[in-house]
Amino acid sequence: MSKLTDVPKRILIGRALRSDRLGETLLPKRIALPVFASDPLSSVAYAPGEVLLVLSIAGVSAYHFSPWIAVAVVVLMFTVVASYRQNVHAYPSGGGDYEVATTNLGPKAGLTVASALLVDYVLTVAVSIASGIENLGSAVPFVVEHKVLCATAVIVLLTLMNLRGVKESGKLFAIPTYVFVGGVFIMILWGAFRGLVLGDTMRAPTADFHIKAEHQGLAGFALVFLMLRAFSSGCAALTGVEAISNGVPAFRKPKSKNAASTLAAMGLLAVTMFCGIIALAATTKVRMAANPATDLIHNGHPIGSGYVQNPVISQVAEAVFGKGSFLFVLLAAATALVLFLAANTAYNGFPLLGSILAQDRYLPRQLHTRGDRLAFSNGIVLLAGAAALLTVIYGADSTRLIQLYIVGVFVSFTLSQTGMVRHWNRHLAVEKDQAKRRHMMRSRAINTFGAFLTGLVLVVVLVTKFTHGAWVALLGMCIFFATMTAIRKHYDRVAEEIAAPEEPDDDLVRPSRVHSVVLISKIHRPTLRALAYAKLMRSDSLEALTVNVDPAETKALREEWERRGIDVPLKVLDSPYREVTRPVIEYVKGLRKESPRDAVSVIIPEYVVGHWYEHLLHNQSALRLKGRLLFTPGVMVTSVPYQLASSEAAKMRARRRQEWSAPGAVRRGPAGERPKEPSEPSEPSGSSGSSPKG
Amino acid sequence: MSKLTDVPKRILIGRALRSDRLGETLLPKRIALPVFASDPLSSVAYAPGEVLLVLSIAGVSAYHFSPWIAVAVVVLMFTVVASYRQNVHAYPSGGGDYEVATTNLGPKAGLTVASALLVDYVLTVAVSIASGIENLGSAVPFVVEHKVLCATAVIVLLTLMNLRGVKESGKLFAIPTYVFVGGVFIMILWGAFRGLVLGDTMRAPTADFHIKAEHQGLAGFALVFLMLRAFSSGCAALTGVEAISNGVPAFRKPKSKNAASTLAAMGLLAVTMFCGIIALAATTKVRMAANPATDLIHNGHPIGSGYVQNPVISQVAEAVFGKGSFLFVLLAAATALVLFLAANTAYNGFPLLGSILAQDRYLPRQLHTRGDRLAFSNGIVLLAGAAALLTVIYGADSTRLIQLYIVGVFVSFTLSQTGMVRHWNRHLAVEKDQAKRRHMMRSRAINTFGAFLTGLVLVVVLVTKFTHGAWVALLGMCIFFATMTAIRKHYDRVAEEIAAPEEPDDDLVRPSRVHSVVLISKIHRPTLRALAYAKLMRSDSLEALTVNVDPAETKALREEWERRGIDVPLKVLDSPYREVTRPVIEYVKGLRKESPRDAVSVIIPEYVVGHWYEHLLHNQSALRLKGRLLFTPGVMVTSVPYQLASSEAAKMRARRRQEWSAPGAVRRGPAGERPKEPSEPSEPSGSSGSSPKG
Repeated sequence: MSKLTDVPKRILIGRALRSDRLGETLLPKRIALPVFASDPLSSVAYAPGEVLLVLSIAGVSAYHFSPWIAVAVVVLMFTVVASYRQNVHAYPSGGGDYEVATTNLGPKAGLTVASALLVDYVLTVAVSIASGIENLGSAVPFVVEHKVLCATAVIVLLTLMNLRGVKESGKLFAIPTYVFVGGVFIMILWGAFRGLVLGDTMRAPTADFHIKAEHQGLAGFALVFLMLRAFSSGCAALTGVEAISNGVPAFRKPKSKNAASTLAAMGLLAVTMFCGIIALAATTKVRMAANPATDLIHNGHPIGSGYVQNPVISQVAEAVFGKGSFLFVLLAAATALVLFLAANTAYNGFPLLGSILAQDRYLPRQLHTRGDRLAFSNGIVLLAGAAALLTVIYGADSTRLIQLYIVGVFVSFTLSQTGMVRHWNRHLAVEKDQAKRRHMMRSRAINTFGAFLTGLVLVVVLVTKFTHGAWVALLGMCIFFATMTAIRKHYDRVAEEIAAPEEPDDDLVRPSRVHSVVLISKIHRPTLRALAYAKLMRSDSLEALTVNVDPAETKALREEWERRGIDVPLKVLDSPYREVTRPVIEYVKGLRKESPRDAVSVIIPEYVVGHWYEHLLHNQSALRLKGRLLFTPGVMVTSVPYQLASSEAAKMRARRRQEWSAPGAVRRGPAGERPKEPSEPSEPSGSSGSSPKG
Repeated sequence: MSKLTDVPKRILIGRALRSDRLGETLLPKRIALPVFASDPLSSVAYAPGEVLLVLSIAGVSAYHFSPWIAVAVVVLMFTVVASYRQNVHAYPSGGGDYEVATTNLGPKAGLTVASALLVDYVLTVAVSIASGIENLGSAVPFVVEHKVLCATAVIVLLTLMNLRGVKESGKLFAIPTYVFVGGVFIMILWGAFRGLVLGDTMRAPTADFHIKAEHQGLAGFALVFLMLRAFSSGCAALTGVEAISNGVPAFRKPKSKNAASTLAAMGLLAVTMFCGIIALAATTKVRMAANPATDLIHNGHPIGSGYVQNPVISQVAEAVFGKGSFLFVLLAAATALVLFLAANTAYNGFPLLGSILAQDRYLPRQLHTRGDRLAFSNGIVLLAGAAALLTVIYGADSTRLIQLYIVGVFVSFTLSQTGMVRHWNRHLAVEKDQAKRRHMMRSRAINTFGAFLTGLVLVVVLVTKFTHGAWVALLGMCIFFATMTAIRKHYDRVAEEIAAPEEPDDDLVRPSRVHSVVLISKIHRPTLRALAYAKLMRSDSLEALTVNVDPAETKALREEWERRGIDVPLKVLDSPYREVTRPVIEYVKGLRKESPRDAVSVIIPEYVVGHWYEHLLHNQSALRLKGRLLFTPGVMVTSVPYQLASSEAAKMRARRRQEWSAPGAVRRGPAGERPKEPSEPSEPSGSSGSSPKG
């Protein structure tokens, strides 16, 4: 990340960004899949394990239920995929859950979804990296021995990368994702081959462990409850499915169709891998326990806290490929890499959602400006900070983090699907064409079922996981919700305060005259230029103003003023305390008092220097004075800049900064392609700060 | 320091500051003495101990030399005092060593003195507080057990006090200083009385310790060298003598005379206390060792690291008054308090010197503005940081810190005295009046001797202490010197760059026309006001400019523009990347290209809000745009502020901030009373930043 390598890269990126618009970087499906699916696919690395973990509470016997849970997850996955295929068709603009909910269920629902998604992004980072570390750890013990440290290191690394605006290319995603998917499939097939054809007995490293059930012989409701908990853990496999619906604009034409089929492909892959791993885990007799130290029994003794419980996927890989074999290590590496990529997607999603929220004035407006480095940096740092906090608090333990994870996902699933139902109702109300109507009804049916099922799961998740950590996620959502509501309130209040009246009231009646004042310290180019410009503005009266901080200097100034015969009257203010600001402010206020209907224009010569440390040497009291003047009504403050030679340097920097490209460009598709939702123009957004678009 | 108690205090201070000018606060001698002498007087609290410490290296036998060293110190003290009495008469303006050196020996010498003084201020804080803690520790063991902690705490406390602008009154200094002086004199007299009249034998707590000489039976050069080292440690008693020469304006008339006699009184007190303590130390058989743990022998065994070696003054007090007696505790407390006051004087001197250096453009110009809170804060924080660093590095051990201390003092002594010699030579060259000439010659003689002696001591100090830490002080001086030279170079370069030519060259030829552009985001009060003001300025052409970040909003804007029939053409810029800054910049540049002789005036409506978090929600892109525009030649940027209701809050804050009064006002005397040195007005100081006085 040295500055040296950085500069040329920036320039390159700058070029790349421009060419964006030519649509060259639109994604073919084979690239789109990995770009959008790294998150959902990677989750099969931890989801199966979570299922077994929960079941283990009722002892090994409960493992029999794992296939049924897998089936449930599959059903759910298909439902969700089917539902989102409808979103993709209905919102080719890439309207994410937030927009779907806002447009169809109103702002409150939208904001809820937004809060849920924001929390989710944080957890995606935390969970994916934690799990990535654990997978890496199965091959490289050191990593898992220093879990928290390594996890935090990865977070820092990703943060730096994204702050630098490293633009990920499709390939970056493609290679590891395909390696991962390929690896898992080879594992499943080779496992099946060995098991069914060769008849080998493959045994996971934990195969001959026993599990001390925390609750022996669970039955009836308790058992059902446990199953439900296991199921809701398994639902972790669904996280990130919605990603594609945000990214439709990034697809090649026909966008919606391609996005839809990519979704389908992704769903198919995910479930196959999920089931395959569950099946292999069963055949290789993988044993997982919620508290391995005490509940895993080896030769009659608890295995103790020294033992590290590897993820299911790596245990299975070990059983199928053999410990330390090339394929085993490759798969472990690929898994970790894909999980880190999944985390990285959150780094793109978080600021993007932020900018959409800013557009609706739930967040500072300037976050909206696209590719605004500042805005993205803030978002990225906030995300990283929250994720790091969770990582440390939960000791980078993916199992404990996942307890928080799924709530947000299903909140947005449910609301978005409900929104879709409304959407179809709205359209059905006006649609006449029978064929279209039939199609819409079909879609509505799908979304209805999706809404129902995801809603059901949400309830299950809340009930089964609330005490296990879901409450934390809910708390986080509330905080986001409250903050954003407050910001929106502020903007609305301001918008009201500054709303332009139909008939200009006396606050806006055009002032009758303007009195210009040029601030002078010495006679040098900057002041002479300021004088020249001030004269150009034919204000009703013009005078030069200086503060007598130092009698000798003032005398010298007066004399030179005479000598040069400057045809502007020079007014000297006394300043017993060597102050600058106060006398000027008071003088200006005085002018206003004399003639309240007039405006005062204060013209300040300013240096423009190239480096911050130079800036420390100049303009300080000018800045303070300007700051104070802005609070004085009826005043306008004009800076007449004088560019010093050194300012070139800063100009260069500024230019380079502009060529910075925001992360996640790939997933977002070319700029300016995202037309607004019908609902939006009607929204007032006058409080957007002061410049053309604040 | 709660905000509540703070506000009223601020107002009071504000009042007090104003009344300054009435001269009420001019100092009578009885107050001036403690105000200026707390630093030099307090140094007798550690100087005697340092002498014994060094002598102990040659064993107890060497203690016999202490009287001789005392004599040497006394002679030196008288010389220095006599010399500075000349300064005071010659520079009633309160020209400190820096100005004396600059005026008579040129800027390089002056800058050297300045660097020395800056380093000295830092060490005054570190040494005084460390020693204060040790004295307090003799009464309150806890304090000395947590030396570094407590010392740092005191530094933080003083820093906060001074940042808050707590204005010390004469009394604040008077009471503890007089208690301290009184206490020491009572101790000396009572000690003498007990010893000579009552014939008691007073024994210091360390009286029956033996000292293991590091170098047994030193003789010849080695011994002389050791004596010299002891002497230069003793010179610590002279630190701060020069303070008065800075403060002449604070005295009642006749200023110089009063200042001179105060100097004399201070010198007299200092030497009496110094000698008295040395004498008592001898009679009470105080034993100090450089490394007490190993070199102090008690009953045949080294006393070990557990032992805390109390300062001489407290050991003597214990012998004379008795341990834990009221007077003993009182003296310990007073000593500590005076030492902390001495440290506090550095908090006043450092920023004051800073502002003088700023005036000569060796430091950022805005530090010059008097009572400029920001400037003072920076100085104070810098001072505190450096002092704290030293305190931690040297474990708040006054003995080790003093090794660094004396260099700076004598650098400025020597240069200032040499300067005075030059001063008299200059005046003698022109003076005709015989009486005056005789007087001048006398003064010159005194200063010459002073310069010689202090120069000699400087050499001794450098030779004997260089390896013991003096090099650190020298390094510090070099760093200050280099930095300030660089800053001055920068200012000079800029001054040259912006110097106004006699004949306005084409860079300054008055541009022929001005083209005004008002930036518009929406139609609301701020923009309407901006438009109204823009019209007032009868520029040659006026247009409104908006950036099309969002087609829908732009369309809405266009329509309302029509509807309201605003008589200013509305120009819309396209922005494919939803950027704001770049299109505007490029448009402005375009205008300039079309007609290079014209100026462009960009008018930006701005919100004025009350709280920083509100500011985060507004104006951001306005600020960035302004930042960029300043780099575009031929442009002036006008902010038309619109004060939102909440801005009142900020107005209040700003007003309160103005009522803050800079620390050290007492010692500096009333404002505006410090006329400039003859040399100064001639100096160009055009690079003083942009406002009336940068």
